[in-house]
Amino acid sequence: MLDPQLIDVIGTAGAALTTLCWLPQALKVIRERDARALSLPATLAFTLGIVLWLVYGVAIGDWPLIGSNALTLAPLGVILAMKLRYG
Amino acid sequence: MLDPQLIDVIGTAGAALTTLCWLPQALKVIRERDARALSLPATLAFTLGIVLWLVYGVAIGDWPLIGSNALTLAPLGVILAMKLRYG
Repeated sequence: MLDPQLIDVIGTAGAALTTLCWLPQALKVIRERDARALSLPATLAFTLGIVLWLVYGVAIGDWPLIGSNALTLAPLGVILAMKLRYG
Repeated sequence: MLDPQLIDVIGTAGAALTTLCWLPQALKVIRERDARALSLPATLAFTLGIVLWLVYGVAIGDWPLIGSNALTLAPLGVILAMKLRYG
């Protein structure tokens, strides 16, 4: 069995990576003005999903859920806007 | 305040969308053999993050976490492989 503290570190690292990874994607799309390989249905579905996760986090008062989903929405909104603009 | 059943529906819908959205992205990359707009650091970080979420889910025995992250890994593995192959 894994140490409970190690389990927390693993969960926190997973949350940090799946939250922060959208920053390099947003920066790449801004820099290169190319979003052709991004799927619009996938980007729309992911963005709506993150909004629902945020609403869920607010509803149950869970701050890690609120924080990580709010942080994800910022670069994701940029990616979606660039996809709509540059196709 | 929101009804507890509605809160569950919102959370489940968020989980379903953020899990299933990778399927259209994987299909698009396979079909078009173009992954240029995808950020390699972002894709690597997201994949590693999902693996850590999966390990966390197994460690705490949480089936929704295990199921949704395992389901995410399949199309994500395809996306990462296509990115490495087609650039």
